This record gives sequence, structure tokens and C-alpha cells, in this order.
Amino acid sequence: MDGIVKVPVALGERSYDILIGEGLAADAGRWFRAVLPKARACIITDSNVSGRHLVAFEKSLRRAGVTASAVVIPAGEASKCFDVFEQVVDQVVGGRYERGDAVVALGGGVVGDLAGFVAGVVRRGMRFVQVPTTLLSQVDSSVGGKTGINSRHGKNLVGVFHQPDLVLADTKVLDTLPEREFRAGYAEVVKYGLIDNADFFASLEKTWRDVFAGGPARTEAIAVSCRSKAAIVARDERETGDRALLNLGHTFGHAIETAAGYSGAVVHGEAVSLGMVLAHDFSVRLNQMSPDDANRIRSHLAEVGLPTRLSEIPGGAPSVSTFMELIGQDKKVQNGALTFILSRGIGEAFIAKDVPAEAVRAFLTDKLSEGQA
Amino acid sequence: MDGIVKVPVALGERSYDILIGEGLAADAGRWFRAVLPKARACIITDSNVSGRHLVAFEKSLRRAGVTASAVVIPAGEASKCFDVFEQVVDQVVGGRYERGDAVVALGGGVVGDLAGFVAGVVRRGMRFVQVPTTLLSQVDSSVGGKTGINSRHGKNLVGVFHQPDLVLADTKVLDTLPEREFRAGYAEVVKYGLIDNADFFASLEKTWRDVFAGGPARTEAIAVSCRSKAAIVARDERETGDRALLNLGHTFGHAIETAAGYSGAVVHGEAVSLGMVLAHDFSVRLNQMSPDDANRIRSHLAEVGLPTRLSEIPGGAPSVSTFMELIGQDKKVQNGALTFILSRGIGEAFIAKDVPAEAVRAFLTDKLSEGQA
Ligand SMILES: NC(=O)c1ccc[n+]([C@@H]2O[C@H](COP(=O)([O-])OP(=O)(O)OC[C@H]3O[C@@H](n4cnc5c(N)ncnc54)[C@H](O)[C@@H]3O)[C@@H](O)[C@H]2O)c1
Ligand SMILES: NC(=O)c1ccc[n+]([C@@H]2O[C@H](COP(=O)([O-])OP(=O)(O)OC[C@H]3O[C@@H](n4cnc5c(N)ncnc54)[C@H](O)[C@@H]3O)[C@@H](O)[C@H]2O)c1
Ligand SMILES: [Zn+2]
Ligand SMILES: [Zn+2]
Repeated sequence: MDGIVKVPVALGERSYDILIGEGLAADAGRWFRAVLPKARACIITDSNVSGRHLVAFEKSLRRAGVTASAVVIPAGEASKCFDVFEQVVDQVVGGRYERGDAVVALGGGVVGDLAGFVAGVVRRGMRFVQVPTTLLSQVDSSVGGKTGINSRHGKNLVGVFHQPDLVLADTKVLDTLPEREFRAGYAEVVKYGLIDNADFFASLEKTWRDVFAGGPARTEAIAVSCRSKAAIVARDERETGDRALLNLGHTFGHAIETAAGYSGAVVHGEAVSLGMVLAHDFSVRLNQMSPDDANRIRSHLAEVGLPTRLSEIPGGAPSVSTFMELIGQDKKVQNGALTFILSRGIGEAFIAKDVPAEAVRAFLTDKLSEGQA
Repeated sequence: MDGIVKVPVALGERSYDILIGEGLAADAGRWFRAVLPKARACIITDSNVSGRHLVAFEKSLRRAGVTASAVVIPAGEASKCFDVFEQVVDQVVGGRYERGDAVVALGGGVVGDLAGFVAGVVRRGMRFVQVPTTLLSQVDSSVGGKTGINSRHGKNLVGVFHQPDLVLADTKVLDTLPEREFRAGYAEVVKYGLIDNADFFASLEKTWRDVFAGGPARTEAIAVSCRSKAAIVARDERETGDRALLNLGHTFGHAIETAAGYSGAVVHGEAVSLGMVLAHDFSVRLNQMSPDDANRIRSHLAEVGLPTRLSEIPGGAPSVSTFMELIGQDKKVQNGALTFILSRGIGEAFIAKDVPAEAVRAFLTDKLSEGQA
């Protein structure tokens, strides 16, 4: 097939490839076989994706001689919970899949995070293949091996590092994605520009409509994002250092998402959009970056239709005390100080280890009164 | 303190020490601090152990300046389940323990397996300390990093490899252990002799009463066992080869344990005793070893009071079909063949990769009719 981009993730004996291309899923069986010659496949997918893509996907596996069965979970963040985790584990175990067989995640980040955790714990670790079907999961969650579920105390607090053996990102599959979801995933694409690639951000400002429309511009934006993530993960697989940069916008974002209750009122990428705006505004307030850069970021996110103001949160923004409580759960507050991802400008994010919790509180207090004004 | 034996477990950057000695727990805080200078401790223990050893243990931690809290789970194998797992995870997360803090397992193999799994998944991996309080956990389950819970499809099917940072085996703590439990753990001590150390088996035949009584003979037997396990684990951390030898007696044993329903009618070590007898009898039947060796093994296990005949199982032995069904869940049956640990004599266990399932069935059919005769 033409136009397949291969992005290697260099992790020693846990190395693998991300394959990106239009229509790739039709050849999934062949790619699967090339990497896992003897494995059976236990597909995990969700109730939205199954209707649209499961039959074709299973057919492709079968054509390549891969024995497969499927488990369908309810769509939505609420499935990243203990109950669904237990049910899926039980089905994989009951299906007598072995350590050499593969759990295959066919879906967005919810399916990927849950299925990866299942793959990491059934028989203390099975093979794992990611077939991400949302923009967010293609550029972010399917790469890097973080898996897990939510606890009632916060997002992603329970899980394992479990690298996939293969990631198959079919950019065509995104055509069936609701526009809101595509847009939300786009927030993470923008994130890579903001972390360390100002040129990429500048090109997105010009070409974002093409990325939304599909075709080569989309494939290219996904490939740049994956390369960026792969490089960071290769430097720091277990997040003891640089990998934390990927959390740009996520401390505020997770608080917004948790407060909204994973109900779908705010989806992850929307929360990240708001969180990135807050992180950059906060950087401005701490005299780390210019207001012009922060405005350019906000403008681009707003232009594509992402939320950029707390007042846009359906049901209202969390209170300052809820915010601080949730941030404290997400990040350790040590001697009154927090680790935060701040920025010195577009493409110049950095890890700040001693941000006073009081500065965060004062910033949020002002932001929230603005929002209500 | 005098008479502390240190057994290193050599696993590269995951290496750690097992410390074995009488009264060691009183110094737990100091040992903990030496390995984890800044960590807080979230102790997991069970309802039997907490009344006997928790207060002293917490005091020792406090004396060394370690902040600690405790979670008490119901005693018994039934706690190795999803519900208790979820509850404990929730308490550790709710206690705001970080990745650098430690989950401390104070208890037998049930507490250790569950707590280790919790440590492996909270925030995708916390520090972990084992303080085993049963003979079985001191010589076996606390060493090697296998953690997990049971599924309704079988034992230990869900979990992770998560090595501890330290193992503290206080041989004195075993004085409060019910004799039945001590005896059950002794089955695993015997196992090390049977796998590859005929001299150790011969010495146990002579000195087992001293091991049961306590003092230096007990410490020595535990140290020999730990060295044996440490050597096998260092060779093959993730059980892709030799580590399977540790499953001697466990394929039959797990089936017996699962059939009895983890009710306490048969405890793990008792099932292993029966399983080892079966594995050696089966080896005799396959003309791999002499009936004399098998008889010597049975005699020793019977002498210490361990069950050696299927007819001794309270509630009756599983039927042949139940046995085969459970063995099939435990071990992959490929083209009608099973991988089994067999033996050529005392201290000469080996991995047999192509044991016909039909041979197992025929053997069990005969055994069960004997038992009923
Ligand atoms: N593991 C990581 O490193 C990582 C990184 C970022 C985000 N995440 C996680 O990812 C999750 C968010 O992922 P997401 O945005 O993909 O959410 P998602 O999986 O919930 O997918 C969004 C929605 O789109 C639907 N959908 C998926 N593919 C579709 C398709 N091709 N056509 C039509 N509908 C489709 C889904 O059913 C769902 O309703 C969050 O839980 C977040 O925590 C994880
Ligand atoms: N992870 C591994 O590598 C591995 C290896 C072997 C066995 N195991 C697991 O270990 C478990 C069995 O371990 P176990 O035999 O220690 O069982 P256990 O933890 O249930 O302990 C046995 C009983 O003794 C009590 N007890 C523990 N310490 C005591 C003490 N000092 N004084 C008084 N009572 C005490 C417990 O409350 C329990 O009732 C099984 O679940 C088995 O699967 C794991
Ligand atoms: Zn994200
Ligand atoms: Zn055992």
C-alpha cells in the first residue's frame, strides 16, 4: 500500500513501530501476522466503534489466518473503571488466551487505556496491539505504553506501563469520528507544537483546515505528532524526567475533566485545550512568557472551535477549592510547592519543580472571577 | 542484631536483599529506612496478623521516623479477588501515597500477592516491601516478584511482575502461626530439595523436627530455600524457562485447590504436598523415576503430617473431568500435549514439554479409583 509512514519507537527490546496511513486497517491482519506470527487476537472495542469498523477489521484478521474474538464495552470514559476492567479481564481469561496471544484495542483512548491494562495483567502480561480510531488516540494515547483506568480519586491513577507490539493508525477511520471528537484530539496535536516545535505550530495555524479535511495533510500532522511523542518516550519511558512535558495543560485539564465527572460534558481534548490556555496564561502571570504568545495560542484553539475560557464549561467551572483539591490529587504538593509544566514561549515548554500552590490558587481565583464577569 | 542471614536476589537494577533472622521485625523501621530513605509506608495486613503483629510493627516504623498507615483485609485466600483489590487500591490512592512511597505487605502469601499487585498498579507502580509472616511466604511467595489475584477461572491469572525493594523474614513471627499453616508452608521447603537439592531433602528428613521447633535450624532451612528460589528467579525472572521448575507439584495442586474453592478446606501448601506426590507418582508411571524415590518423598511428607493421598481431601477429591478441566485452564493444551514438571529422582526435576493429556487422564483415573478403594 502507498503512503504508509512508519514511526519507530526505540525502547530496546520493547521497541515497536507505529504505522500510519489511509486505509491501513484493511490490511491489519497482514501487519499483525508480520509482528506476531502465531498469536490469536482478542479484540476489545466499544459500542460506537464496533458498528462501524469491527466487521471489516475482523475480516482482515481472518483473511490473514488470525483467529479472533471480540469484546464490546460501552463507549465513553465511564468504561475506564474497575467494573468494566474486571469484566474484560474475565472474558480474556475465560477465552483461554495465553501470554503469547494479543489483546487488540480497536477504538479511542478509552478502549486503548483499558485494553492495555488488561493486556498488562492477564497472566501477568500478554502481547498487545493498538488500532487507534480517534485522532487523540492516534497521536497520543496509543503510543508510549501508559495504560490504566480511573479511580474515584482521579484519572488514570491505576494501571501499568505496558508497551504495545504494534500500533496501526488508519487515518481513514477518522472519517466516521464525530467532529467534536476530532477537534478534541486536535488539541493534543497542537500540544506537540507548543512543547518543542514552534514550526509545527506555525504550520498548523496555516493548514489546520486540511488536517480536518483528511488526506496527506492529516497523515503528515499525525506522523509529526507521533514522532514527537516517540522521541520523548524513548528518552524517558517511565516518566522520571522529560516525559512530564507531555502533561502540558493536563494538570488543569484533568481537574476540569474530573470535576465534570467524565459525563461527556467535557471530553479529554477539550479539557486539555482549556488546560493549555490556563498553563500558558499562568506562565505569563509568572513572567515566564509574553502575552502575545499566549494570545496566539488561545486564538488558534478558538479558531478551530476548541473551548478556551472556563465560562465555556457546560455546567460551570469548578470552584477554586475544587480545583486545588483535584490538582493536589494529581500532583504531589510538597512543602506547599507543585511541579507544573510551564512555558517560555511557543515550543518552549519546561518542567517547573517549585511552583507555589498559593500562586496557583491566586491565579485561579482571578481567572474564575474573570469568567463570571 | 546477631544471626541475620542476607540472601541477595540478583536482578540488575531490580536487585534486592532478603533478610532472614529471629526478631528482625522489631528492627523493621531501620531496615526500611536504609533502603527507602524518604518513603512513607502503607501497610497491608490481614485480620489474623493485625491483632498479633501490627502494633509492634508500626511502632518499629515510627521509631525510625517512617510515616505509616494500615489497611486490614479479611484473612484467607478469598481476599485475592477483584473486590478486595479495588478496595485496597482505593485506600492507597485515597491516602495520597506517591510512586516513591511503599506498599508494605505484612502477612502471608495472600497479603503479599494482593499488596504486590496493588503496589504494581497504583500510579503505575509504587515501591514495595514484603514482610512475610508465614513459612510459605518466607520461603516462596515473597521472593521473585510474582503478584496477583485469582479469577473465577483459576488461581493467580491476573497480576503483574513487580519486584519488592526489600524482604524482611522474621522467623520468630512464625511462632504465632497455626501449626497447620506452618506445616503447609513446609511443603514448599521440601519442594526446593526435590527440584535440585537432594542433600537438602536428606537433611530435612533428619532435622525437620528442629525446623518445626524454631531457632537456627529453622532460619537455616528458610535461608537455603530463599537461596534456591533467588537463583532460579535470577536465571529467569519472567518464567520463560527454568522458573517453571518452581511449579513442581503445582499443576495438580492448583487443580485441587481450585476445586476445593479456596474455602480453607485445603490450603495451598497442602494442595502442593498432594500435587508433589502426584507429580512424582506420575513420573514413576512414565518410567522417569524409581518407585523408591517416590515412596521416600511420600513418607517424608506423611511423617510431618501433610496430606499425601487424594482420599485425605475433605469433601472428596475432584473428579477426573474436573481435574482435566482445571489443568487445561492452568496449562495450555497444545495438540493434546501439556507442559509438566516431572522428575528423574529426588533433586532431579525437569520440564517436560509434551506430556500427552491422555496420559494425565489415565493416571488420574487410576489414582482416583485407588483413592476410593
Ligand atoms: N495512555 C495515554 O498515554 C493517554 C494519553 C492521552 C489520553 N489518554 C486517555 O484517552 C482517553 C480519551 O481518548 P479518546 O478521546 O480517543 O476517547 P474515546 O475512546 O472515548 O473516543 C471518543 C468517542 O469517539 C468514539 N469513536 C472512537 N472511534 C470512532 C470512530 N472511528 N468513529 C466514530 N466514533 C468513534 C468513541 O466511541 C467515543 O464515543 C482518556 O481516557 C484519556 O485519559 C491516554
Ligand atoms: N507470588 C508467589 O510467587 C507465590 C508463591 C507461592 C504461593 N503464593 C500464594 O500464597 C498464598 C498462600 O500463602 P500463605 O500460605 O502464606 O497463606 P495466607 O496468607 O492465607 O496465610 C495463612 C493463614 O495464616 C494467617 N497468618 C499469617 N501469618 C500469621 C502469623 N504470623 N501468625 C498467625 N497467623 C498468621 C493468615 O491470616 C491466614 O489465615 C496463595 O494465595 C498462593 O497462591 C504465591
Ligand atoms: Zn491528553
Ligand atoms: Zn506454591
